[in-house]
Amino acid sequence: MLSAQDAIEGIPAPTNIAGGSYPRILPDGKAVFRVNAPQADKIQIDLGKLYDGQKDDKGIWMVTTDPLEPGFHYYSLVIDGVRVSDPASETFYGTGRMSSAIDVPEPGVDFYTIKDVPHGDIRHKNYFSKITGTWRSVYIYTPPGYDNSGSEQYPVLYIQHGGGEDERGWAIQGKTDIILDNLIAEGKAVPMLVVIPNGNVSRPGMTAGGYNDEAMAVFGEELIGNIIPFIEKNYRVKPGSENRAVSGLSMGGGQAFYTGLRNTDVFANVGVFSTGLFGGIGRPGAGDSAFDPESVIPGILTNSESFNKKLDVFYISVGEQDPRIEATKKLVATFRDKGLEVGFSSFPGGHEWQVWRKSLHDFAQRIFK
Amino acid sequence: MLSAQDAIEGIPAPTNIAGGSYPRILPDGKAVFRVNAPQADKIQIDLGKLYDGQKDDKGIWMVTTDPLEPGFHYYSLVIDGVRVSDPASETFYGTGRMSSAIDVPEPGVDFYTIKDVPHGDIRHKNYFSKITGTWRSVYIYTPPGYDNSGSEQYPVLYIQHGGGEDERGWAIQGKTDIILDNLIAEGKAVPMLVVIPNGNVSRPGMTAGGYNDEAMAVFGEELIGNIIPFIEKNYRVKPGSENRAVSGLSMGGGQAFYTGLRNTDVFANVGVFSTGLFGGIGRPGAGDSAFDPESVIPGILTNSESFNKKLDVFYISVGEQDPRIEATKKLVATFRDKGLEVGFSSFPGGHEWQVWRKSLHDFAQRIFK
Repeated sequence: MLSAQDAIEGIPAPTNIAGGSYPRILPDGKAVFRVNAPQADKIQIDLGKLYDGQKDDKGIWMVTTDPLEPGFHYYSLVIDGVRVSDPASETFYGTGRMSSAIDVPEPGVDFYTIKDVPHGDIRHKNYFSKITGTWRSVYIYTPPGYDNSGSEQYPVLYIQHGGGEDERGWAIQGKTDIILDNLIAEGKAVPMLVVIPNGNVSRPGMTAGGYNDEAMAVFGEELIGNIIPFIEKNYRVKPGSENRAVSGLSMGGGQAFYTGLRNTDVFANVGVFSTGLFGGIGRPGAGDSAFDPESVIPGILTNSESFNKKLDVFYISVGEQDPRIEATKKLVATFRDKGLEVGFSSFPGGHEWQVWRKSLHDFAQRIFK
Repeated sequence: MLSAQDAIEGIPAPTNIAGGSYPRILPDGKAVFRVNAPQADKIQIDLGKLYDGQKDDKGIWMVTTDPLEPGFHYYSLVIDGVRVSDPASETFYGTGRMSSAIDVPEPGVDFYTIKDVPHGDIRHKNYFSKITGTWRSVYIYTPPGYDNSGSEQYPVLYIQHGGGEDERGWAIQGKTDIILDNLIAEGKAVPMLVVIPNGNVSRPGMTAGGYNDEAMAVFGEELIGNIIPFIEKNYRVKPGSENRAVSGLSMGGGQAFYTGLRNTDVFANVGVFSTGLFGGIGRPGAGDSAFDPESVIPGILTNSESFNKKLDVFYISVGEQDPRIEATKKLVATFRDKGLEVGFSSFPGGHEWQVWRKSLHDFAQRIFK
């Protein structure tokens, strides 16, 4: 006779540690978590919504969620009120710590699935930052064939993670290498390097990261003063603003907006994904009505034609269930009203990696053409 | 007035998440952990030895350990009996899950510290295994200058993690890139590639990893049949056994012993670090007296001269506080008694990464010369 446990259907989440059966994703999109904790008084799973577990007579707790949206969701295991990562899950730097996550497959969507196509490398490299006074690390995607292409040079996309994340975000959660490998194999994107820095930059004594002007400025100094010269010295990349793009999600979208639009001589391509700059949650003290783009980027509304001349691609995206969507749409309308050329896409989903994977997939097809 | 917390001395562990103050390492080598868990009945830290925490009136638990040995120690936070990783720590794949760890600096030892020397890359690459029928990943260290050295070819060290770990072990815990960068800068090791595969290999239906003959054999097939051809196709490496080394720690040391010594036409350099093959803990059902090398590697004792001719370097190391040390020393004595040339080193420490970092540092200086 099958036990209740054996009878559970579904598939192990792809984010489980190797060989792990739980958490499982059921055919209806619900997830089931399993925790062995006979001595605990209360076990919960926090997926934004808090789900209580039920304990059996052997001390095994099971938690079943509502149907989950497709995509990558950070979650916590809550043991007697303490939020920790689930030993059953791989961990990912997000929410300011190594967090569990569950990646729910999206039916019919395979642009971030590894396929039998030529694969590039993701490289990990240490460099010394004169801003922070420390060694820092950066990931660099080099496209298929880079090693055997002689003196060929490539354009570069610089891409930033969100608040509470670091350079591992786009390298791991974002599946940058797989998305680019597939796009390049299909001929939909040109071969490019993708450089994935740590956006939490601070001078000694400052708090790293954040949406304030000082944090945005110091990130721009790090990118333009340290990272770009390091990349251009060590990799075969094309010079010139038309061969550079800067993009990012949430806090990193703010960084792309500030750094890209203030330096159109350096970047002719700017991609802003789900940024909190434009209102909604995520920018302490600022809502949509408080954001005046002209105050941040002088001329963006009053001299839009000069931006149109310098920019090849200016792109904004957001999730359709993200609280930022209305403010973002309003800003895009304002930009267009003032004659600024801006591409806009929205995707199903909230403030989540599935939207950002789709944003990269979309943006990478528009640039360097 | 300082609170008890402010008054604590020491330094944040280098393995903490960015900006984290705890765990701290005190001047006398003790570690102090801090956990905010007002609703928990019991908080412990498991570092092999179990340490109980003390709760203050705000629900903050503090745990102070005995003085810790220098080096990298996996640990668990235990909340009401449930072993999880500590949200304050980076996580590392070890003990079969994403585990917390504390890396205690060793005074005067800086061979694995990032220095201002030329740095290689650690690359992450996906390949398809015909053995497992799945996509797998491998890390590849390419030395400084690899990208700009034209058609120059390099020797390759293949190196394996231990049980409960995966390919991230040598890439992250082992600090392979930093160790090699420093050795190459000092002229103590020749520029080489280091290939870091996942040693948990199984055919569909088998259990991955382990010390049994089938697991050892299938690993050898994966390494020689899939990984080496993949590397030799995609990277500029020298052909010939004299330009290949295979090594590993614990379970991976067993894999290096089996695969290397059974295939001396493929590998002329074999490094075996702290392997459980030779007895002590870690090899279910086998102690030192049960291990007969001749049964595993025919001729190793009875025809040692043929091995001496084919091998440039055969190297064994172990920690001086590792339960395996006596069995290992006895085997080395047996080998030497039979005329087999074998290098041997021991280092202070138990069955731990500090011994393995030192083993790599030692072995890498001996090979390809």
